[in-house]
Amino acid sequence: MQQFMQERDWKQFHNPKDLAIAISLEAAELLEHFLWKNGAEIGSRVDSHGEEIRDEAADIGIYLMELCDVLGVDLVQSMSAKLEKAGLKYPVEKSRGTSRKYTELKDD
Amino acid sequence: MQQFMQERDWKQFHNPKDLAIAISLEAAELLEHFLWKNGAEIGSRVDSHGEEIRDEAADIGIYLMELCDVLGVDLVQSMSAKLEKAGLKYPVEKSRGTSRKYTELKDD
Amino acid sequence: MQQFMQERDWKQFHNPKDLAIAISLEAAELLEHFLWKNGAEIGSRVDSHGEEIRDEAADIGIYLMELCDVLGVDLVQSMSAKLEKAGLKYPVEKSRGTSRKYTELKDD
Amino acid sequence: MQQFMQERDWKQFHNPKDLAIAISLEAAELLEHFLWKNGAEIGSRVDSHGEEIRDEAADIGIYLMELCDVLGVDLVQSMSAKLEKAGLKYPVEKSRGTSRKYTELKDD
Repeated sequence: MQQFMQERDWKQFHNPKDLAIAISLEAAELLEHFLWKNGAEIGSRVDSHGEEIRDEAADIGIYLMELCDVLGVDLVQSMSAKLEKAGLKYPVEKSRGTSRKYTELKDD
Repeated sequence: MQQFMQERDWKQFHNPKDLAIAISLEAAELLEHFLWKNGAEIGSRVDSHGEEIRDEAADIGIYLMELCDVLGVDLVQSMSAKLEKAGLKYPVEKSRGTSRKYTELKDD
Repeated sequence: MQQFMQERDWKQFHNPKDLAIAISLEAAELLEHFLWKNGAEIGSRVDSHGEEIRDEAADIGIYLMELCDVLGVDLVQSMSAKLEKAGLKYPVEKSRGTSRKYTELKDD
Repeated sequence: MQQFMQERDWKQFHNPKDLAIAISLEAAELLEHFLWKNGAEIGSRVDSHGEEIRDEAADIGIYLMELCDVLGVDLVQSMSAKLEKAGLKYPVEKSRGTSRKYTELKDD
């Protein structure tokens, strides 16, 4: 990936702000596949447009890795640190089976 | 990560559409750090809010991995396949040093 | 609205790029209300968080009007011109009752 | 606009969640015009792609109006109510000339 960017001399455009925009735009392209689709139509879309959907997921991954490179961040290590924090905000007994945000979790 | 999701019985919410929305929302939270910031202010924001920014990047990575799990997609393999396709759309000699979209690349 | 912006000397930040980001971030805040919600849960969320949802819609409207002001664009006139174009891309007989994109509309 | 939607029998797709997604996607299409562009390049993009940019702004407006119709919300009234609230969160003397979020506003 770094070779790809360097050959094209694209590093100059890759500041954190524009990379965050790029991630956001790729996420929108992924999401567009599911607009107006609900229930079983979501799975049908995955079946009929699998490669495009995989490509959009890949684009998000590529810009995310590039952002981490620019920031000097180890993504895998950050993900594991974040999951640990999330475990504190969402204790198993309170958050099991609910999609509530941690600010809306109730005691029993 | 899978253990984290299963302990909380969250797999039931994780259809591709809502996961795509989740990625999009986390991307927005990342981008919010850079709103109204330009030039040197972007780097200053990274310096002053490094941990939050790393956390947002991690959240995107977590939901992206979860989406790939739900889709049965190998993300790393998809990224490398996508880079190969991008290499064809953006040949080095035409795309070097320009941020133009491939539809706007010019000969010479 | 113009008075609000001028009193705070905020016009200096309002370039089209950052205003587009601002619209995008407000749209994400609106969408967040419906993450992991489907079917009847969508209406319940509207009932329980009506004011917040109205506020997010208002924020989008405010930044959109501000963008149009910066661009010197008449939004209402642009909307009516766009609906006219959309009418050509989506003829009633082909697009009735389907959510297909115009590139995917079929004869018959 | 209502006539346009009704002729095509599109009201059935227009639940608040999908309309929020639609707004978010149109906002991304608007923002895409400014990706990797900074400083004077932003204005140049407006000059060279004025009609497309106006169209994206119009699309956001159309889906936003449609959402307000579905929610039974008066957008203009909500915008003016929101500006009033914003005026309390961002008092002129504290927020003048700064792009800080209200949570980060400082005394003097």
